[in-house]
Amino acid sequence: MAQQPSISKGTRDFTPAEMIRRNYIFDTIRSVYKTYGYFPIETPAMETMQTLMGKYGEEGDKLIFKILNSGEFKQGISAEDYANASSLALANKFCEKALRYDLTVPFARFVVMHRNEIQLPFKRYQIQPVWRADRPQKGRYREFYQCDADIVGSDSLINEVELVQIIDTVFSKFGINITVKINNRKILSGIAEIIGKPEKIVDITVAIDKFEKIGIDNVNAELLEKGLSQQDIATLQPIIMLQGSNEDKLAKLKQILSASEIGMKGVAEIEYILHMLQVVSLKTTVELDLTLARGLNYYTGAIFEVKANDVEMGSICGGGRYDNLTGIFGMPGLSGVGISFGADRIYDVLNQLNAYPTDAKQSTKMLFVNFGDAEVAYILPIIAKLRLAGIPCELYPDAVKMKKQMQFANDRNIPFVAIVGSDEMAQNKVMVKNMVSGEQSLVDKNFLESVLQ
Amino acid sequence: MAQQPSISKGTRDFTPAEMIRRNYIFDTIRSVYKTYGYFPIETPAMETMQTLMGKYGEEGDKLIFKILNSGEFKQGISAEDYANASSLALANKFCEKALRYDLTVPFARFVVMHRNEIQLPFKRYQIQPVWRADRPQKGRYREFYQCDADIVGSDSLINEVELVQIIDTVFSKFGINITVKINNRKILSGIAEIIGKPEKIVDITVAIDKFEKIGIDNVNAELLEKGLSQQDIATLQPIIMLQGSNEDKLAKLKQILSASEIGMKGVAEIEYILHMLQVVSLKTTVELDLTLARGLNYYTGAIFEVKANDVEMGSICGGGRYDNLTGIFGMPGLSGVGISFGADRIYDVLNQLNAYPTDAKQSTKMLFVNFGDAEVAYILPIIAKLRLAGIPCELYPDAVKMKKQMQFANDRNIPFVAIVGSDEMAQNKVMVKNMVSGEQSLVDKNFLESVLQ
Repeated sequence: MAQQPSISKGTRDFTPAEMIRRNYIFDTIRSVYKTYGYFPIETPAMETMQTLMGKYGEEGDKLIFKILNSGEFKQGISAEDYANASSLALANKFCEKALRYDLTVPFARFVVMHRNEIQLPFKRYQIQPVWRADRPQKGRYREFYQCDADIVGSDSLINEVELVQIIDTVFSKFGINITVKINNRKILSGIAEIIGKPEKIVDITVAIDKFEKIGIDNVNAELLEKGLSQQDIATLQPIIMLQGSNEDKLAKLKQILSASEIGMKGVAEIEYILHMLQVVSLKTTVELDLTLARGLNYYTGAIFEVKANDVEMGSICGGGRYDNLTGIFGMPGLSGVGISFGADRIYDVLNQLNAYPTDAKQSTKMLFVNFGDAEVAYILPIIAKLRLAGIPCELYPDAVKMKKQMQFANDRNIPFVAIVGSDEMAQNKVMVKNMVSGEQSLVDKNFLESVLQ
Repeated sequence: MAQQPSISKGTRDFTPAEMIRRNYIFDTIRSVYKTYGYFPIETPAMETMQTLMGKYGEEGDKLIFKILNSGEFKQGISAEDYANASSLALANKFCEKALRYDLTVPFARFVVMHRNEIQLPFKRYQIQPVWRADRPQKGRYREFYQCDADIVGSDSLINEVELVQIIDTVFSKFGINITVKINNRKILSGIAEIIGKPEKIVDITVAIDKFEKIGIDNVNAELLEKGLSQQDIATLQPIIMLQGSNEDKLAKLKQILSASEIGMKGVAEIEYILHMLQVVSLKTTVELDLTLARGLNYYTGAIFEVKANDVEMGSICGGGRYDNLTGIFGMPGLSGVGISFGADRIYDVLNQLNAYPTDAKQSTKMLFVNFGDAEVAYILPIIAKLRLAGIPCELYPDAVKMKKQMQFANDRNIPFVAIVGSDEMAQNKVMVKNMVSGEQSLVDKNFLESVLQ
C-alpha cells in the first residue's frame, strides 16, 4: 500500500527557486555581519534538556521540542510513576535532549565551554534553524532560521549602536522600509519601582509584551489579575502610553522616574544610543516605544524590535542586552548584546513586496542533447572540459526524442543547446543552438567555451 | 546554583576557525554539483514518523531520533497500555515526528509532493545535517552533514558515470587520494538466485555489508544463522572473494551468473559504467568490489563507496541506484540514483592530511582603538564608510587601556590598527599602524580605503 506523503505541520520544503531567494537573504545578512567583524560559529541542533529548560519562562519550556531517549526509554519508570506524573514531568524523565529554541542560549553555553579558545570581547554570528512547538499560522513556523549576531564581554553601549547600524544596513540592502523600536528593560524596572512593586517586573513585562496583540484594556486586566492594584495601573498606563517624539518621551520619563536609580540609568542608556545614532546617518527611523517589552526573560538593558512599514507582518528582527546569561553556566560577570533577523518572515516580506533582485536565476548554461552511446562517448570529454572551467552544463541522460529534450531545455531556461550527431562527430564540431534567438552555429569542439562566456 | 555546561553526546560545536574549514568543504562540493547542473533544495529537520519508519531496516528504525509530541502526550495512553507496550511501540504512540536519518527518503517525499513544480529528470543537491542515535566513536557523530546529489526520472547509466566523475572531481580538488569501490545489487541478487535462495537477498546483503568490519568467518557464521546451508556458503564465498582486475572479476562473474538474468544485467551495467569512465580520464581508481553491499534496503542497482587511500577512516562518500523509492509514496516507476559526501569525515581526513588551503583566514582588516565618546563620535562615520565599501573593520567597544586593545588586534591577526586621539581629530586624520611591519602613517580620514586595499 502506498502511503500518502505528508510534511510535518508548520514545516516547509524549499524548491530550487525558493532556495535562490533564501540564499540571497542569508548572503546579504552574512556579508553585513562580516563587515562589522563578526565571525561564524555553529552549535548542534540538539542540546541537553538541562541547557535549555528554564531559560525561556514557563511558556517557553512547553514550546521546546523534546527528543525521546533512544532505546529502552521506559527503563526505570514504572506504570505507577507513569500514572502519577504530568506530561511535562514525564518528558523530563523520557528525554535528555531537546531541539534548540533559539541561538542565544546555545551561544552562552558555547562561550562558557570554549572560554579558553576565544578572545573577549567575542563577536559571533550564527545562521541556523530553531524549532518551536508553536501553533503554526501566517508568518509563524515550527522550524525557522535565525540569523544572530551577538557580542559578549563588553558592556559598552557602542555595541547597541552598531547593532542598530547593522539593522539599518541590512534592510537598506533588501529595500525594505522599517521602523526600529527601542526600549530598555531598566526603564520597565524603574516603572515597577515607582509603583512600589519591583518584584512584579516579570509580570509587568509579560503583560506589556502583549499590548500590540490584545490592546491596553486586556493588558490592564492581566496586570490586575497578577496582583497590581487599580492605583498601580493608573500610574503605569500613562507612562507606557506616552506619545510624542523620542525627546518628549525621554523628558517626561526623567520626571516620572527621577526617584528610581535603575529607571534613570535606562533613560541615560537610551539617550546615549540615540545620540550616537545621530552621528552616523541612518536611513531608518528609530522610535522609543515604551510598550516594547520582548518576552524573553534574560534581557536586562536595551531591547530592539523591527517592523516592516509597508507589509503587515510580526517583528522581522529583534534583540537586546543580557547581563547574566553565561552566569547560569558558571561564568558570571559577562555582559552580552545581540540581534536576530527572522529570515523566514523577511522572505515573506520580500515576496509580498516583490523586491528580489532579478538576476537570481538558475545557472545551467548548456544542455547537450543525447542521441545514444556513441554520441555520448564523444560528448563526455567535451562536457568534462567545460565543467573544469567552471561552466555549469548538462547532458540529457536518456536518448529520448529530441523534441522532449528541447522542451526540457526550454522549461529550465537553459540558454544554449548543443546538438551532436554523426556529421558533427566526423568534423570534430558541435552544433550550438541559441535558445533565445533560435540561431544555430557549428563550433569547433575545442572552442565551445568562447560561445558560452 | 550555576550548572556545569555540557554538550549532547556525539554532537559538536564549530568555532570560527573550524567554520572556515567546513565552509571550504561545503563550497567545494557545492561548486562541483553546480557545474553538473544540480539545483539546491532543503527539507525540514523533522519528518513525520510515517515518512521515516520502515525505510532503513529494523536497525535503522531504532537509530531514528523521535520527537515527543508537545503538550499532553500521555493523553489516551493508560498506565496499563504503558505497562504492556515495548519502548518502540510506545515511541510510536508518543511521537508523530522524528529527525531525518538521511537526505534520500526526504528527497523521495519531496519529489512526490512537488511533482507538479519540477521537471523530470530532476537533479537536486542538498547539504543539510542528519541525525542518528548511533554510539558515538571516532569519525561517527550523532549529528553530521550529508552533501547529497540525486537524479530521479532517468534510468540511464550515464547518471552513474557522471556521479563517479563528480566524486573524482571533488576529491581531486581536496587533494585526497581515494579509491571508488563499485558493485551492483543485481549481481548480489544473481548470486542469491544461483544458490537457489533468492528470498535471502536481504540477509545476504546485510551479512556481506559487515565483511570489512568482522571478516569472512563471521559473515559466514551470520549467513548460516540466517538459514543458508554450508553448501550455499561454499558457493557464495569464492564469488564475493574474487580477486584480480575488474576485467578478471567480470569475466568470472559472467561464467558464474550465466543462468541468472538479473545477475547478468548487473554485470552488463557495471561493464557499461566502467567503459564510459574510460572515455573521460579519471584521476581515481575505480574498483569492482563484490564484498560491497551497503546496508540501506532501498538500493536496486549500482552502489558506490569511497575510501581515502592515505588515512584510516570509514567510507567518506557513498551512494547508489534505487528504483522504487518514490513508489512508497504513491509515485511508482521513477528510478533514482545518488551520492552522498560525508562532510564530517572529509573534515577529519583533511585535518589529518593537513591539506587545507592556507588562505582560509579570518578577515577583519582594521581595528579602531577606542579612547572614549568624543573619539568614537569622530570614528563612527569613518568606519561606516569603510563598511559600506565592503571592508570588514571593527571599533574596540570599550575605552580600556591601549595595550589591551593592541593585544586584541594581535591575537586576532588584524593587519591594521587605527589610532585616533585629539591631535588626529584636529587634523582630520587617522594614525594607521601596520601590525606586521610596525610602520605608522598619518592618513587623511577620507582616504583610508586606499591603505586597506
